Amino acid sequence: MSAEALSPGAVPPVPDPVAPHPVPQRLVELDEIQDAARRIAGVAVRTPLLASPWPGLWLKPEGLQPIGAFKIRGAMTAMSRLSPEVRARGVIAHSSGNHAQAVAYAAKVFGVSAHIVIPENAPAKKIDATRALGATVELVPVEQRFSRPLELAAQTGQAVIAPFDDRNVIAGQGTIGLEIAQDAALCGGRLRTVLVPVSGGGLISGIAAALAALLPDVVVIGVEPELAGDAADSFRSGERRAWAPADTGRTIADGLRTFSVGVLPWEHIRLQVHDVITVSEAEIIDATRRLALQARLVSEPSGAVATAAWLHHREALPDGDAIAIVSGANVDPDVFRMVLEG
Amino acid sequence: MSAEALSPGAVPPVPDPVAPHPVPQRLVELDEIQDAARRIAGVAVRTPLLASPWPGLWLKPEGLQPIGAFKIRGAMTAMSRLSPEVRARGVIAHSSGNHAQAVAYAAKVFGVSAHIVIPENAPAKKIDATRALGATVELVPVEQRFSRPLELAAQTGQAVIAPFDDRNVIAGQGTIGLEIAQDAALCGGRLRTVLVPVSGGGLISGIAAALAALLPDVVVIGVEPELAGDAADSFRSGERRAWAPADTGRTIADGLRTFSVGVLPWEHIRLQVHDVITVSEAEIIDATRRLALQARLVSEPSGAVATAAWLHHREALPDGDAIAIVSGANVDPDVFRMVLEG
Repeated sequence: MSAEALSPGAVPPVPDPVAPHPVPQRLVELDEIQDAARRIAGVAVRTPLLASPWPGLWLKPEGLQPIGAFKIRGAMTAMSRLSPEVRARGVIAHSSGNHAQAVAYAAKVFGVSAHIVIPENAPAKKIDATRALGATVELVPVEQRFSRPLELAAQTGQAVIAPFDDRNVIAGQGTIGLEIAQDAALCGGRLRTVLVPVSGGGLISGIAAALAALLPDVVVIGVEPELAGDAADSFRSGERRAWAPADTGRTIADGLRTFSVGVLPWEHIRLQVHDVITVSEAEIIDATRRLALQARLVSEPSGAVATAAWLHHREALPDGDAIAIVSGANVDPDVFRMVLEG
Repeated sequence: MSAEALSPGAVPPVPDPVAPHPVPQRLVELDEIQDAARRIAGVAVRTPLLASPWPGLWLKPEGLQPIGAFKIRGAMTAMSRLSPEVRARGVIAHSSGNHAQAVAYAAKVFGVSAHIVIPENAPAKKIDATRALGATVELVPVEQRFSRPLELAAQTGQAVIAPFDDRNVIAGQGTIGLEIAQDAALCGGRLRTVLVPVSGGGLISGIAAALAALLPDVVVIGVEPELAGDAADSFRSGERRAWAPADTGRTIADGLRTFSVGVLPWEHIRLQVHDVITVSEAEIIDATRRLALQARLVSEPSGAVATAAWLHHREALPDGDAIAIVSGANVDPDVFRMVLEG
């Protein structure tokens, strides 16, 4: 479904972060994901599949990535697919967090500059981490987060690396699905469900695309905070819906405050994802705490929502084993201490 | 050097945990470690080598193992090498912590019983975790920790799985060295040092044996708490020395309170380890905190000593990149909260 095809009742989508671009219709395919796996090897960590302390749940710890989140997979893939001439000019990205660090890190790997536009209300830890990676950080009012990168790109001729609505980025995140398929034997034939945090939808799109090809019997379920439930809302209604930033901004899961999934992600969610469910703030905090104290994994609240769904909404999931993607670990120290106090 | 060969000035070693056994003289060899790698595959996690937030330091996160520590590697190897008839009787182990959980886990994998003798002063979290794995736990006064397993073994005919002074256990821990050799290319030819926590010495022995064969130019350095510095003391003096339990018991690093390295580990340390250095309690706490908040890894204080050595004693290390083994992550919640407050 293209942006133009949104039904009259739907909230109009927010501006797509990279505009204008052709409305993509073709789903990301397995060979693109396999190509991405070759492009990220040696930079992104090939994360293991871990038995959790909770029988029946397995964890994919993406917080082990060099920037502490899965985003390095997509950013490296997209950067490596730029022509050398374009890449040499440096790149632009906008992000409130982990995508910023991922693009900064990938730019460093390629030896090019990165200019990152970050909304003023982003967590200090994520801003600092982006600067520490050598990127130029420009803080802007939230409402300029989409327009400013385009303005810059027009001035400089630099490429914008989109956070999720881009087939190369989706292919990169999809390498997690390849690895799951490689490791699924650990689950002894019982793997039935993969639980994936949803924000802009790039992560779940890539995983769903890989698993549709490699493990078609496995159910892919998206998980969102109740307070930023635009994807669940979209899934229920069958049309891509946006929530107001003032609403999505309420959740502690700062990586999941995006107010609508992207155009291409929506195609994957609509066609390859089996459900999108939501978790409460208390459930997110509980899962973050139990991941640290019981599963021995640092996670940020956004990274813990899939685990929260398994811990608190088992009745909504198919029988059999499940994998929860623990998508990131860049938690603010004060938030982490608060969570551990429980 | 055998136990009998200890010089007159040396403190007599504590009773070896599995006695009587022939005094081993032959170092563990590469083919034994390669055999161990096949035996643990699919049970122990093949941990990735992670770039740390500190340029030049790489981390081997053994806290990702199913029992939260490297000990599963040695316990699985030793269990798998028992004859099926002996193994079927169930096994005995003594441990204040992670070895207990490792033997309990391995016994569960093989479908046999485990009887674990634990000193009364062990951390509650580790005792509970061992029980949760289905083992029978027997709490004994500290002074019976060595005698009680032997008494039991004599009564039941069950095998004792030793925590470190056993060539199969050492071969299992050595699989970490194999993986380091496989991943060393990530360091771009700069790898010079591997830093390893030392308690009974099984871990460093296995790693040193593997690297002596595969990466002979890499320096292996042991790290201990100052308050439990028996191995550093032994290394300096050239003879295996024991410290009083009342002394080693002072460190927050509860996994490193063993009062002397084992007989076979001492042979490896003497011949294949390049130095043993010590870190203060404050340095251990700082490293545990920075691993969690900056490197996004949960570790127990014992697991953080190698990182502490790199963060605080760089001057004692060779130039070039280093790998710190983060050996375990079974930290008591109260200790972890205290550490994060810093």
